[in-house]
Amino acid sequence: MTESLPTALNLPMVDPLPETTQKYFDVCRDKLGMVPNVLKAHAFDIAKLDAFSGLYNELMLADSGLSKLEREMIAVVVSSVNRCFYCLTAHGAAVRQLSDDPKLGEMLVMNWRVADLNHRQRAMLYFAEKMTKASSEIAEYDREALRDAGFTERDIWDIANVAGFFNMTNRVASATDMRPNDEYHAQAR
Amino acid sequence: MTESLPTALNLPMVDPLPETTQKYFDVCRDKLGMVPNVLKAHAFDIAKLDAFSGLYNELMLADSGLSKLEREMIAVVVSSVNRCFYCLTAHGAAVRQLSDDPKLGEMLVMNWRVADLNHRQRAMLYFAEKMTKASSEIAEYDREALRDAGFTERDIWDIANVAGFFNMTNRVASATDMRPNDEYHAQAR
Amino acid sequence: MTESLPTALNLPMVDPLPETTQKYFDVCRDKLGMVPNVLKAHAFDIAKLDAFSGLYNELMLADSGLSKLEREMIAVVVSSVNRCFYCLTAHGAAVRQLSDDPKLGEMLVMNWRVADLNHRQRAMLYFAEKMTKASSEIAEYDREALRDAGFTERDIWDIANVAGFFNMTNRVASATDMRPNDEYHAQAR
Amino acid sequence: MTESLPTALNLPMVDPLPETTQKYFDVCRDKLGMVPNVLKAHAFDIAKLDAFSGLYNELMLADSGLSKLEREMIAVVVSSVNRCFYCLTAHGAAVRQLSDDPKLGEMLVMNWRVADLNHRQRAMLYFAEKMTKASSEIAEYDREALRDAGFTERDIWDIANVAGFFNMTNRVASATDMRPNDEYHAQAR
Amino acid sequence: MTESLPTALNLPMVDPLPETTQKYFDVCRDKLGMVPNVLKAHAFDIAKLDAFSGLYNELMLADSGLSKLEREMIAVVVSSVNRCFYCLTAHGAAVRQLSDDPKLGEMLVMNWRVADLNHRQRAMLYFAEKMTKASSEIAEYDREALRDAGFTERDIWDIANVAGFFNMTNRVASATDMRPNDEYHAQAR
Amino acid sequence: MTESLPTALNLPMVDPLPETTQKYFDVCRDKLGMVPNVLKAHAFDIAKLDAFSGLYNELMLADSGLSKLEREMIAVVVSSVNRCFYCLTAHGAAVRQLSDDPKLGEMLVMNWRVADLNHRQRAMLYFAEKMTKASSEIAEYDREALRDAGFTERDIWDIANVAGFFNMTNRVASATDMRPNDEYHAQAR
Repeated sequence: MTESLPTALNLPMVDPLPETTQKYFDVCRDKLGMVPNVLKAHAFDIAKLDAFSGLYNELMLADSGLSKLEREMIAVVVSSVNRCFYCLTAHGAAVRQLSDDPKLGEMLVMNWRVADLNHRQRAMLYFAEKMTKASSEIAEYDREALRDAGFTERDIWDIANVAGFFNMTNRVASATDMRPNDEYHAQAR
Repeated sequence: MTESLPTALNLPMVDPLPETTQKYFDVCRDKLGMVPNVLKAHAFDIAKLDAFSGLYNELMLADSGLSKLEREMIAVVVSSVNRCFYCLTAHGAAVRQLSDDPKLGEMLVMNWRVADLNHRQRAMLYFAEKMTKASSEIAEYDREALRDAGFTERDIWDIANVAGFFNMTNRVASATDMRPNDEYHAQAR
Repeated sequence: MTESLPTALNLPMVDPLPETTQKYFDVCRDKLGMVPNVLKAHAFDIAKLDAFSGLYNELMLADSGLSKLEREMIAVVVSSVNRCFYCLTAHGAAVRQLSDDPKLGEMLVMNWRVADLNHRQRAMLYFAEKMTKASSEIAEYDREALRDAGFTERDIWDIANVAGFFNMTNRVASATDMRPNDEYHAQAR
Repeated sequence: MTESLPTALNLPMVDPLPETTQKYFDVCRDKLGMVPNVLKAHAFDIAKLDAFSGLYNELMLADSGLSKLEREMIAVVVSSVNRCFYCLTAHGAAVRQLSDDPKLGEMLVMNWRVADLNHRQRAMLYFAEKMTKASSEIAEYDREALRDAGFTERDIWDIANVAGFFNMTNRVASATDMRPNDEYHAQAR
Repeated sequence: MTESLPTALNLPMVDPLPETTQKYFDVCRDKLGMVPNVLKAHAFDIAKLDAFSGLYNELMLADSGLSKLEREMIAVVVSSVNRCFYCLTAHGAAVRQLSDDPKLGEMLVMNWRVADLNHRQRAMLYFAEKMTKASSEIAEYDREALRDAGFTERDIWDIANVAGFFNMTNRVASATDMRPNDEYHAQAR
Repeated sequence: MTESLPTALNLPMVDPLPETTQKYFDVCRDKLGMVPNVLKAHAFDIAKLDAFSGLYNELMLADSGLSKLEREMIAVVVSSVNRCFYCLTAHGAAVRQLSDDPKLGEMLVMNWRVADLNHRQRAMLYFAEKMTKASSEIAEYDREALRDAGFTERDIWDIANVAGFFNMTNRVASATDMRPNDEYHAQAR
């Protein structure tokens, strides 16, 4: 049915899904209670789905000096600047869950500056915000501020790439009117 | 040597490179006359390199209703809004080469509105620019304008994802002070 | 205790409160389960509290061609542009409650353009947004658009004054670091 | 007559005015030589007029650590950012009168940064300007700058509320095309 | 004396002035009652003064399809966008004088959109404003709008060059803290 | 022929040109290999051409504490903010030629912050950029920063006037769709 499409584009999923994809989606349903719509949106072309989820998993789930919560915090702050309904909904829920602090999730969605953050987190989010609003003005002293806050060279790479990634997905979600799964709204309130 | 690092971050390439990566880089050298610095920049962690180049290749090189030149045009226009030196240099060269029109490359770098484009290209670049500057304001009539210009649902997906991708890489390049290979500057002038 | 102050300014409430004020606060506790912090913040000077709540009540609670929900929708959209944590929290909860639609509240907080609104509501919120972002550019055709959507002269006055009011309170809240009562976060999810 | 209405909305004054309102307007005529159009604009509904003038009088005329001139200076600077013809005209005249310095009034209308102000006034106007342009970015150091310039907690409250108030009235005036009384233009030149 | 310098730069006038310059300044004093400070500011180097006044006179005083009032209106609107105290003061006075309408001068200083203008003037000022705020987005339809309003090719050239000129002088005046002669403030009120 | 006009305005050159103008254009052809289109664009009215080239020559070619390269660098940075195709093309070529460093020209066109500049040049370009983006916010400390970098009062005047000049010509070029001579594109690559 057209109305169940996850975006405003008429691009239905491959049917049937290849076995590997079906298994991936089944795992999502088991662990998250749903298949995130961003995956369904890509599933009209399995090569695109694989390339997207490959980068997503590397950035958000692989080992990093940044905790998963920190990466989700970056996701929400970038998405707040870009006012992306999909990503604020999905990653706002993730911040609420991982932090066990519903108010923190709300603050990052609404205005991260009001959140009670430590120096490391504040430096990280300030950098992510500047990358989002005025990347061409980033200078060596911005990177130095991250180093001063205790981040390694790899950590800075990861901050930059997570913030960059959501500047991509925010725009793709808005450009295609991608809608988040309803399940997110009530999670971890 | 530190000075040969492709970014301001001290993240040297894995040494020696795994065989597959070495082959990939050798192919680049054969075909392009260089290994693009964006690849070297990722090569401190081969999983990150593979995830990045996986998405890049899917978006920029795979089959699409958009020609390779059109995808490079989007890359340059997005990078112009974001004032990304790396991407303007590398993809400006690509536009000059693929179009055989050096002036077109300059125009897209400087101000795409002065370029003599057909309706299809103008609609595509207008959408990419709006995604870059104000993605949260994109509405159904913006997608309709693309359909009216002859783009299919898949084409719109591709426009959105190519424009999104360079909003990621522009920011990563600026955030890490990534420098383009010198070879690009004189190409196809 | 300093930490219970509702803003970053050291301005404790008059103690004891005058009888009328105490009754007003008791009514709040009965009906809302709390005394909203914006009232406590003003209560260091009862004349200021009375003047503020006088205007608030006239705009938000008095008879109007705009429903209470519509006025709360304006409050949230204005507060979203201004990224005011206090007002997004308090009036986001009000939208969720009055509409019985938690997702609507989230949408207005994050990006009102994604909400599924009728023509009347869309015209109203577009006007409130333009007033917030670029009031000096409002012209007769903007008022005509409201008339075309069915609003009377009094309704337009009310839209303008509700939108204006939250442009005041958003700024006062941010300027004083006013914090919303914790009770709002979980309401009507 | 329609042409004598103080705004673009067809909302004529209650006729006859209630006795108290009539007296208030008579006092205005005696003291100011006119009834300010903002009062006439509200007088289609006396409850709205009373609520508005109640807050106005509390903020602009009641006792405060800020002089009346200082409050008018804030009014003009906020109105300059918002380019509000009504408020720049009426409160620009007030600054010229209260300061006995016509050039000061002009400077605040045109670009307050060129005015020869003391440290206290400069800090106050900088804060009011930041509240107007980017209230969500106000932080504790902004309030500290006011304390360092000698302002008390109550003074900071008053600065915030006066600046907030004109962010409301500027927008209401522009949204309704409210016109200032002609008498202001030549006053105190 | 340093305090009589027309800018914040320590660049006193050539002393004595060459005979031609002295005559030019004497004519100014006769006709305007003063030597405009912008001329004194340039007079540290007579070649610069002559080049500047050569272009000024050609644009503002030579024959044109635009009346002198219309050129002054453009000057004020451009200077309002740029918030240039010098040019708003000097050319605001010129609009008041040439139009015999003090309120028109105020409106153009504060917010030209509130002025009661005919179609020709509105088209002209809209174009000048767009040139000032977003010149890179001017397109053929903007020029067509001027032609539709009755402007010739030469007129459009003149609009563009007058608007351009004040984008130069506004910035030079602000960059050097150039101060207008006090005489302007009370003129033609 | 209409298509050879240097702008979108139908304003052909005086024909024949006066002898002095013809000689000036012949010199251009000898020294530059072309008559710059900006001169042809003005040549529909020789008084306008003379006034324009008089100021241009005074600012860009006369003696100054700024080298010709430095003045061209300012031209390119201002034109980059304003995204002026004509001036970026013509003055980008000049920077490449005068510096013998093609990459420097590209960097200034794309994002001057990535260029490897000394303190003097960086201070100069920062000032020119601020003049272009936010001239009304320039304050004494901005001029002090130039003095600290070694610039004299005359040098600061020259920086301000060169930056101002290109804020004029950028806007005139965009407003009239002025096109640069094709010869520039391949120069000094």
